[in-house]
Amino acid sequence: MRVYNFSAGPAMLPLDALNVAQSELTDWKNSGMSVLEVSHRGKDFVACAAETESLLREVVGIPQNYKVLFLQGGATGQFDAIPLNLTAAGDKVNFFNTGQWSVKAIKAAKAQGLEVDVIVDRAESKYTDTPAADSFVVDPEAAYLHYTPNETIGGVEFGYVPETGQVPLVADFSSTILSRPLDVSPYSMIYAGAQKNMGPSGLCVAIVREDLLGKARPGTPTIWNYTAMAEADSMLNTPPTFGIYLLGLILKWVKDAGGLEAMGERNRAKAEALYGYIDASDYYSNPVALDSRSWMNVPFLQANSELDKAFVAEANSAGLTNLAGHRSVGGMRASIYNAMPLEGVTALIDFMTDFERRNG
Amino acid sequence: MRVYNFSAGPAMLPLDALNVAQSELTDWKNSGMSVLEVSHRGKDFVACAAETESLLREVVGIPQNYKVLFLQGGATGQFDAIPLNLTAAGDKVNFFNTGQWSVKAIKAAKAQGLEVDVIVDRAESKYTDTPAADSFVVDPEAAYLHYTPNETIGGVEFGYVPETGQVPLVADFSSTILSRPLDVSPYSMIYAGAQKNMGPSGLCVAIVREDLLGKARPGTPTIWNYTAMAEADSMLNTPPTFGIYLLGLILKWVKDAGGLEAMGERNRAKAEALYGYIDASDYYSNPVALDSRSWMNVPFLQANSELDKAFVAEANSAGLTNLAGHRSVGGMRASIYNAMPLEGVTALIDFMTDFERRNG
Repeated sequence: MRVYNFSAGPAMLPLDALNVAQSELTDWKNSGMSVLEVSHRGKDFVACAAETESLLREVVGIPQNYKVLFLQGGATGQFDAIPLNLTAAGDKVNFFNTGQWSVKAIKAAKAQGLEVDVIVDRAESKYTDTPAADSFVVDPEAAYLHYTPNETIGGVEFGYVPETGQVPLVADFSSTILSRPLDVSPYSMIYAGAQKNMGPSGLCVAIVREDLLGKARPGTPTIWNYTAMAEADSMLNTPPTFGIYLLGLILKWVKDAGGLEAMGERNRAKAEALYGYIDASDYYSNPVALDSRSWMNVPFLQANSELDKAFVAEANSAGLTNLAGHRSVGGMRASIYNAMPLEGVTALIDFMTDFERRNG
Repeated sequence: MRVYNFSAGPAMLPLDALNVAQSELTDWKNSGMSVLEVSHRGKDFVACAAETESLLREVVGIPQNYKVLFLQGGATGQFDAIPLNLTAAGDKVNFFNTGQWSVKAIKAAKAQGLEVDVIVDRAESKYTDTPAADSFVVDPEAAYLHYTPNETIGGVEFGYVPETGQVPLVADFSSTILSRPLDVSPYSMIYAGAQKNMGPSGLCVAIVREDLLGKARPGTPTIWNYTAMAEADSMLNTPPTFGIYLLGLILKWVKDAGGLEAMGERNRAKAEALYGYIDASDYYSNPVALDSRSWMNVPFLQANSELDKAFVAEANSAGLTNLAGHRSVGGMRASIYNAMPLEGVTALIDFMTDFERRNG
């Protein structure tokens, strides 16, 4: 029996995709081999990777002047790789700080010798909001502005794309990519660890506009040199083949379900149901500003925080798993990525109602 | 129907391990979740990773003063990470060059600002042999000696461990780890991409002696900082969870089969059968010196090289897959990692005999 899994990542995946992966795990396409066992340079896997890229381009709508790279090391790896590829030491960059993933990206940029100007810092709100769209000024000399459109821990999501003029915009989409329609064109670079909406951990997707290539610093690790990786179709070294394969299966599921428009409607309905219930409750609360609430990660508190462990344990027994909040926020967190059906959110709301009735 | 898959990597895996992974791919340990879907910080996965490490320590016999790290980026990533962790720019290092993986490691060390002295260079033999154990002198001032115990492309393997005195010995074991008993103690660091004897691509295992920690250069990417990763039990960021899980299943298979002693006997028998057949043949040949022949990767030529494509295609039809040689060597290559049974080698020999009879 499958449960409703509210893990922040690695996270619930579409059962349809898992079923396909399971059915062919020892014999892929009647080859007598697992996809785990085939050479990344063989024609079958090269075709598989090309199909995954093609599906991603189609589903997201990635313009032709962007390269798609399949990388390793997660978003955390990119925190170092982005400065190494896009800047020289001493360059100025701008950052928004809207949560703990922003903080990590800022720390790495500094470690790579950049002059980091944090032009928005929402630590002052304890990471419960995003800045107003007209509340910041981007330095026209900055090599780029980096921000985190969705902060997985705080459950804070931008409702708009920051305007940066001529300054390249770089964004960590790890916990929101594929969750709704995305206009790639304002971005110079988008990247995302796969382990939320795209598949297993160990795969990181980067979408890089071509004019950003060719600027890597000497000593940039070969496997993260965007130019070299683009020229090698992401096969400069052995890529994470199973992740690329599984991403392809998940993209087929997204496409068959109606693409990002349909994902957006589905995710909007899930988020509205959960936030609506929480806001109508006197027992549960969500600390995030109304215009900044994440569709993907919903932290919530209960009036009696001493019951948090009981809530998580009883929910787990009821088939609603991984609801413990991040230690820095406390309470509970429901991550409701693409693979979580509305029925899962409804089941959570029913459980919350029952838990309050028994304990509130 | 499963085939005999001679791929150099990603490569054939033990069917017993794949069967377990398949059976629980949508419901791991009756959790109602796939292992692909669970948080790396949850107790189930933390226990899984700890068990994998414990099995690796037991099967290989890793002393307590070595850390085991589960990393991303493959051996190629480590070509950059090793200089960043173990040296300062300008330091002297020694390398053996015994093939194309040595060449890549040397190139990266130079890119990281090291003064590289290639104290053994077997390009002169076209990478068909290893140096005599008394034919080189290690610079006592070198930060380390790096070598490749088994060169996957040339099919060249060392029959001894180089003597380096006080100089740390660092080795890329990607294509030979777990293939036979291994004494870790002469090494300061051993690393290996998983995708030959250990599991799927996307996971790289590093075994680092503790006294090498604490020396990373400023700007070393966080996910490759050995000290930080050791302190975080390899979970500084989201690790490649499926790879760690599958490595655990494969280590169980190795252990149940009798451990590295049994693997060594099995691999010796396979190698002796294939090399013995080739050496007795007037039609097939192997270019590698007798004392340097790899137990894992067996390149071979046929007298009429115009028939190479036909050989590979007909073998494929007969259920013997991925036998094309590397483009730099030509001919054919049979990679016969742990998961290849003796029956697969026998089937290959039978096919070679038949092919020669029809074409020789």
